[in-house]
Order: sequence, then C-alpha cells, then structure tokens
Amino acid sequence: MASDGFQPLDEKLLVEYLKSTPSLSAKLGNHFDKLEIKEVGDGNLNFVYIVIGLSGSLVIKQALPYIRCIGESWPMTKERAYFESSVLQEHGRLCPDHVPEVYHFDRTMCVIGMRYIEPPHIILRKGLIAGIEYPLLADHISEYMARTLFYTSLLYLTTTDHKSAVAKFCGNVELCRLTEQVVFSDPYKVSEYNRWTTPYLDADAEAVREDNILKLEVAELKSKFCERAQALLHGDLHTGSVMVTPNSTQVIDPEFGFYGPMGFDIGAFIGNLILAYFSQDGHADKGADRNLYKKWIVKIILDTWNLFHTKFIALWDKHKDGSGEAYLPAIYNNPELQSLVKQKYMEDLFHDTLGFGAAKMIRRIVGVAHVEDFESIKEASKRAECERKALNFAKTLLKERKNFHSITEVVSAIEDFNK
Amino acid sequence: MASDGFQPLDEKLLVEYLKSTPSLSAKLGNHFDKLEIKEVGDGNLNFVYIVIGLSGSLVIKQALPYIRCIGESWPMTKERAYFESSVLQEHGRLCPDHVPEVYHFDRTMCVIGMRYIEPPHIILRKGLIAGIEYPLLADHISEYMARTLFYTSLLYLTTTDHKSAVAKFCGNVELCRLTEQVVFSDPYKVSEYNRWTTPYLDADAEAVREDNILKLEVAELKSKFCERAQALLHGDLHTGSVMVTPNSTQVIDPEFGFYGPMGFDIGAFIGNLILAYFSQDGHADKGADRNLYKKWIVKIILDTWNLFHTKFIALWDKHKDGSGEAYLPAIYNNPELQSLVKQKYMEDLFHDTLGFGAAKMIRRIVGVAHVEDFESIKEASKRAECERKALNFAKTLLKERKNFHSITEVVSAIEDFNK
Repeated sequence: MASDGFQPLDEKLLVEYLKSTPSLSAKLGNHFDKLEIKEVGDGNLNFVYIVIGLSGSLVIKQALPYIRCIGESWPMTKERAYFESSVLQEHGRLCPDHVPEVYHFDRTMCVIGMRYIEPPHIILRKGLIAGIEYPLLADHISEYMARTLFYTSLLYLTTTDHKSAVAKFCGNVELCRLTEQVVFSDPYKVSEYNRWTTPYLDADAEAVREDNILKLEVAELKSKFCERAQALLHGDLHTGSVMVTPNSTQVIDPEFGFYGPMGFDIGAFIGNLILAYFSQDGHADKGADRNLYKKWIVKIILDTWNLFHTKFIALWDKHKDGSGEAYLPAIYNNPELQSLVKQKYMEDLFHDTLGFGAAKMIRRIVGVAHVEDFESIKEASKRAECERKALNFAKTLLKERKNFHSITEVVSAIEDFNK
Repeated sequence: MASDGFQPLDEKLLVEYLKSTPSLSAKLGNHFDKLEIKEVGDGNLNFVYIVIGLSGSLVIKQALPYIRCIGESWPMTKERAYFESSVLQEHGRLCPDHVPEVYHFDRTMCVIGMRYIEPPHIILRKGLIAGIEYPLLADHISEYMARTLFYTSLLYLTTTDHKSAVAKFCGNVELCRLTEQVVFSDPYKVSEYNRWTTPYLDADAEAVREDNILKLEVAELKSKFCERAQALLHGDLHTGSVMVTPNSTQVIDPEFGFYGPMGFDIGAFIGNLILAYFSQDGHADKGADRNLYKKWIVKIILDTWNLFHTKFIALWDKHKDGSGEAYLPAIYNNPELQSLVKQKYMEDLFHDTLGFGAAKMIRRIVGVAHVEDFESIKEASKRAECERKALNFAKTLLKERKNFHSITEVVSAIEDFNK
C-alpha cells in the first residue's frame, strides 16, 4: 500500500474491500459466495470490475495514477475519481434515468461503487458499427444534455452557487490538460503520439498542420474550453461513453467533467455520430449497403439537436422566474426580448457545438486516440477513404461553422461530403 | 471584539495595532510619538487611515462587514480584504511602479498595511475635473494594464497555474455579484437604488429600460463577466481608483479583483475617460472653455488603447516561446499565422473593451453610483445635457461595438455625439 493509503485492487483485495464496505455489501445482499468478478476496463485509465453475486450486482471503478495503455510512463492524477464521482452524483441527481447510481465513493482508494449497467446494454459505438437502430437514443441523450447543462448553468443557478461549483472543478485541471493536448494541440503539430492511416492520409495530416485558418479557429475553441465556465460538462461525451439498449440510454465515465462551454459536450456526441456516419461505407457488406442506416444516423443527428433545443428552451421557460441570474425577469420580461435572447443564446451554442464537434472529429483521425468506427475497417485504403471524407467535412465545419444556421444545413453538408 | 476576532479599528486601537505589528512598526521607524492619523475613507466600504510619523508613513485599510454609506443594512463580506491584498501583491509583483507596496496583511482583522501614496498625488478623477493634464498617464496606465493582464492570462501562464488562480478568486463572488447588480442589472430595470438627474433624464432612463437591443447586448457582456476567466482583473479600474501626479500613476483599491474578461478593466478606464470628456462642458467657466482639455482627453483615450496594444503585443512577442499555453509555439510558429492570431485576439479584446466601457458609462448616469465628473456640475439642466450626450454615445457604443475597428473611429464618434 502506498503511503497515501492507495492500493490498486486485484480480485482478492476487491472481495475484502466489498466485505468491509457496508454500502457495497448491502448491494450484494451480504452474500459473497460465488461472486462472479470480471475486469472489463477497456478504457485507458482505470480498473473496472463487474461484480455479480447471487442476490445483487455492482461495478467497481478504480482510477490508477497513470494512463494504463501507455504503462506507468504517463502519470495521471487518480484524484480524477473524485471528480468523476462528483459529476456522476450531480448529473445523476439531475437526470437519474440516464446516469448510473453511485453507491459508494472512497477518495483515498479512488474507488467508485456504482450500478452495474447489465446486458443487453452495449457501448453505443459498437451498436453504431453493427448497424443497430436505437429508437429512443436521440430522445434520451437530448434529455440528458438539456437537463445536465441547463441546471448547472447561470440560467438556473445563482452566481454564488455557480462560482463555488466552478472553483471545485478547477481541481480537475490535469484531465482538462489531457483534453487540451489531444484535442486542441497534438493534431495541429508534429507529435510522437499522432497517428493516421499511412501512407494514404500523410498529405491530409500534413495539410491539417499547415492550415492557418483552421489553426486560428482551433485557438478560439481552445480558449473557450480553457476560459469559459458555462456549465458542468461530462467532458468526454463521445459514443463510447454511452451504453444503450433499444429502451435505455446510460451515460458513463464523466472523469473529464468540469465547468466548460456546453457546446463541448453536445459537439462531442454529434461529432462522433458524424464519424459513425462516414465510417458506414467501410462496414457495408457485399450486397448489403448501409444506406438506410446512414439515413438513420442522419435522423439521430437532426433529432438530437432539435430535441435538445426544444427541451432546453422548455426548461428555460419553466424556470424563467426562478433563481437563475443570467437573465433577470425584471429586465428580460417582455416576450419579444425573451425571444431575441433565446435565439442569440441558442445560435451561439449551435456554433460552439459545430466547432467542438468538428475538433473532436479531426483529433480522432490524425491524433493519438482513434475510434473503433474506423479502426474496425480492416482494409486500409477503404478506411482512409472514409476517414478523408470525414476529415474534409470536419475541417469545413470548423472553419465555416458560423455560416451554418440550422442542423438541416449541417446534415446536407455531411451528405454532400460523403458523395 | 467579534467572536471571529474581527474588531473595527478606531484611532486608539489603531495605534495599539501598529505597535504590536513588527512589519508596520518598522515602517514607522518604531517611533509612535506625534503620529498624525487621518481617516480618509471616501469610498463606501472601508476605513482608510493615513498614518504619518516622524520617520515614516503608511496607510491602513480595513474592510468592514457592510457597505458603509448605506449603513449596516447592506452587508458585504469583509473577506474582500483578502482578495484586495492578493491582487495588490500579484499586480504589484507584475508592475511595481504603479501599484502600492503591501507591508502587512491580517486576514482576521481584514487589515491591509501599505505604502502611503503621498501628496501631491490626487485621485485622477479630481484631476480630470480640475482640467489638469498628466503627460505620462497613458504611458503608465497602459503599462499597468498590459503587464497585469498579459502575465495573468493563458498567454503567459500554464493552464495548471491559471485554473488554480481562477479557483482562488472564485471566492470573491460577493464583490462580483455587486458588480453584476450595479453594472449589468439595476440600470436596465426599475430599482430603488437607481437615480438620475430628474426630471430632465426621466425619459432617457426609461428608454434604457425599454431598449431591447441594448438589453440583449448587455446580457452578452454579463455572461462574459460571469463566465470568462481570462485574466486577473483589478475589477473596478475607473478614474477614482487611480492616483496621479504629473510624474506618477498609482492604481489602488482592487477589492473587486477576480479572473474575468480583460476588456472589463480596459473598458472601465476608457469609459470613465469618456465620461470625463462629456462632463467638460459643464466645467467650462465664462470665457474659459474646456476645448483644449477635451482634445487632451481624446489624446489620452487614443494613447491608452494604442500604447496598451503595443505593449501587450510586445509582451506576447517576448514570451512567445515561454510557458503560456494559449498558442503553443509548435503550432503557431509561422509569421503569417502569428499575425492572424494576434489580430483576432486584439480585435475581440477591443470589442469587449468598448462594450464594457459603455456599460460602465451607462450605469454611472442612470444607476446607483454616480461620478463626481457630472455630480459636481451644480446646474441640473446643464448636467443633464452633458449626461444625455454621454448616455446616447454609450448606448450606441454598446450596441454597435463590433462595427468599430479602431480607437480613432471611437473618438470620432465621441466628438460627433458631443456636438
């Protein structure tokens, strides 16, 4: 055990830990016979144990003091577990239908005990690769985004509560710095961590590094990411952070959570849907194209933004005379002005969403961490072709985002670039 | 004495306090005979004692737990002394020529001991009313703004240091809330605290409250003020927070300091210069107009922005390969891109400056706290005439700020509105 009381859990220690922690023992009905334990951490940062007993189940997630896939050479604060547990609890309070319940948190051991999201839930990204439709996905994820973002913004909070929460999450700076590096920096410079489908995309990757206008716009996004504390973000809301069945949508892994610009979360989700879209041709079997499925993805992109917009505005209307201090009712009390204010707010948010979404796409094609949507396309030339279309679209979206005025225009552009 | 150890100082207690505090005793050469003590707090929040002894002098500033001018009915955290002392020390480190040295800080007693800014220093606002020219003012204040804002921004700091400082100053939320109320809220609604030169400006004040576009734009500025942690601001940099002689410029009273948008500081200063400009006709004696002095104020406005611009860019160039993480050298390494990036940064800052400056002007004409520049014009109709011109200019500047591309255009507009 380290001097700070931290100890990585193996299976044996895990069982001892479960037995000695009442809130976790209770979830297992205090039966420890025939516990089925499986380590499933396919992320890069943590141990994740699924524990299934005869009368209950749970998940134990333990943060490790380094990034696991690279070994102990890339240290990463295990304090992120504290922020992950904080976001899970806060977002869970705001949107319990779509966030797993936290049973237990141990700051010394960096251990979160939480609800096991049982089969047939799978990671959304895998569902998108398999071509599975989720009829409630847009409804659910828009609900999650609208509620978590609205209720942690100044549209709902007093500036006192907002500043105090902002201060707390300033502590998660190491994870923010990881995002700054992999999203806003590495793809735009020569970096040992970058990779891409070589040699096909060599010129494309170089073009990203040489594109002054792109880099100018990326700087604006990075500055918003670093400076603008708008709402409590998930911080990594890609399609690998969402577990789904046709009836259920659960958002996991908010260890990158902090107060940042709302568009970063919405953009992460929509950007990853767009990556999924561009990868579809690579998954088309002989005779069975993915054209219908692409249309479904387009519909999810449209619905996600449109439903988010509707729900967010509905929350705003519901609480317009509440404690939020961005737009005091005594000032913003006439319908015409209310409409102007909302239009401006949502337009700015839309442009942020497109910008951050595009940045998240670019980094998945020429940066360190790629997505299975493309990686699972075995034939390199075919993969490169899909990636290039996605990259070209993302570059245009990032640079031209302020010229887009509706999500319909965005999906038209997606379809044009896919031709 | 209160249970928290706090005790308001009267003269007798002050002398005891000085005797028992080595860092302060030393500044007085340990001589306490014939101490000359004067309470000069003409602000609204504090006791300010000037202490002059036979072999040294100092100032003692004590924060009180309420706003003094309104009595104990408007409570205000005395913790602001901690933030004031923190800003004085940080800004003093960055720009010692223009910030008084802190000798001592006592968090329990909310007492700051600092250098006495001796005569012939006077408050700049009084000098502007008297029509005195300060040949080094623009050079000095631009130096102060460039250094304090640059060195506390992400152009110089790592995101780690920046976020840690942001978190600390989130604690000064009560003072931020006071600004939110008096700058961004009260002037735009009916408020018991508002006043204006009545009946002359009754319709003008109402027009401010009814101006949808103005209120839409004010909301954008308020959101930046609340959400954007760009640099460590003074937070109240009007012409009453600056003491001057022809050779010296000293910035005092940063108790509103926090991490916010840079344009709020620059705008406060320039906005108050513009108020001074529009007040000049009210101070013209028979036969002695203020036309030459108005030209001098215009020159100071031009020089302040232009020198700030030059010095800020020079600091940026000097540290472009340093620790600042906004624009990593490996990405922003070509001259054309560097020029683009700076142009965009400074243009955004310019527009913020104009917006915040205009908001600070408006609140001084129709909000709770007015400025002596206008208040000292005895004849109400004459005062109202000056104020109306200033108000109309400020409304236009706030709404049209993004259409101004240089400070020269701004001063042309000032001169047009003054006709």
